[in-house]
Amino acid sequence: MGRMDDEARASLARLIRAQRVAALGTLRAGAPLVSMAAYLPEPDFSAFWLRVSRLAWHTQDMLSDPRVSLAIIETDDGRADPQTLARLTLRGSAAPLAEAGAQSTAESAAQFKRLRAAWLARFPESAITFELADFAFWRLTPADARYVAGLGRTHNLSAEALRALAA
Amino acid sequence: MGRMDDEARASLARLIRAQRVAALGTLRAGAPLVSMAAYLPEPDFSAFWLRVSRLAWHTQDMLSDPRVSLAIIETDDGRADPQTLARLTLRGSAAPLAEAGAQSTAESAAQFKRLRAAWLARFPESAITFELADFAFWRLTPADARYVAGLGRTHNLSAEALRALAA
Repeated sequence: MGRMDDEARASLARLIRAQRVAALGTLRAGAPLVSMAAYLPEPDFSAFWLRVSRLAWHTQDMLSDPRVSLAIIETDDGRADPQTLARLTLRGSAAPLAEAGAQSTAESAAQFKRLRAAWLARFPESAITFELADFAFWRLTPADARYVAGLGRTHNLSAEALRALAA
Repeated sequence: MGRMDDEARASLARLIRAQRVAALGTLRAGAPLVSMAAYLPEPDFSAFWLRVSRLAWHTQDMLSDPRVSLAIIETDDGRADPQTLARLTLRGSAAPLAEAGAQSTAESAAQFKRLRAAWLARFPESAITFELADFAFWRLTPADARYVAGLGRTHNLSAEALRALAA
């Protein structure tokens, strides 16, 4: 559990920015459920945004229990030893962004507009999700993080340390 | 939630066989934790084997609660829409293989020998894990499965239906 040097910090920031999809862990009847989710990191890594359908199991799960985990795993390039693939595990809580209705505010409306533009820039094929009423942004706020840069190279990070990486 | 046609069945079997690493969901203090795990499917998909260290968080989690989920996600090839990536979610339970000691039997010894050969063929760089006392095989037995072949193409499978795919 070494202290992260500059190289490890930079490689973690690259991993977060290079990947587009992650493995989302939710609780379903108290048991773990892992599904795929496209994500958009806040530029300062203070939050990871998902855009999910209310019809999806993971969304139902987050509605009933906000505790989630998100794993961002380096793309398997077929190397000899896949244990050397870098991966990040976030643990935290998820909450929907209030886009409309009673909970909506000028602030959340502006946030939605900004997120929509960023999401569409990242996932241009997802425009349809902005026409369907069952999709919403969910904010995943990390409580902590665990970065495995390879066998035996594991680093635990606070949410604050994660944000410091983005600088 | 359509009935799986032959093409969907074949694509799911291909996904399971093509990937090497999966996202493992465990319970840690009742909350989800998702980490990366290399896996070896039984040829008949009746089980998915992991080889993990007792020192790893996910192993500690499985020791305290056997409920797990495993997501096998198609490699992101940079396509325009990552939502079309195929992915499988397994839910089930995990148990260690008794390799030695009081719980060991002639049957489990033979199974260990077979698994070791298959594991080393798949992960030749992992030979070291057979010299370290903290590593063991864990059997993940699926209770059910959920295959998302792309947006809106979701199939639920029983463990029996999953085994039938392998034929």
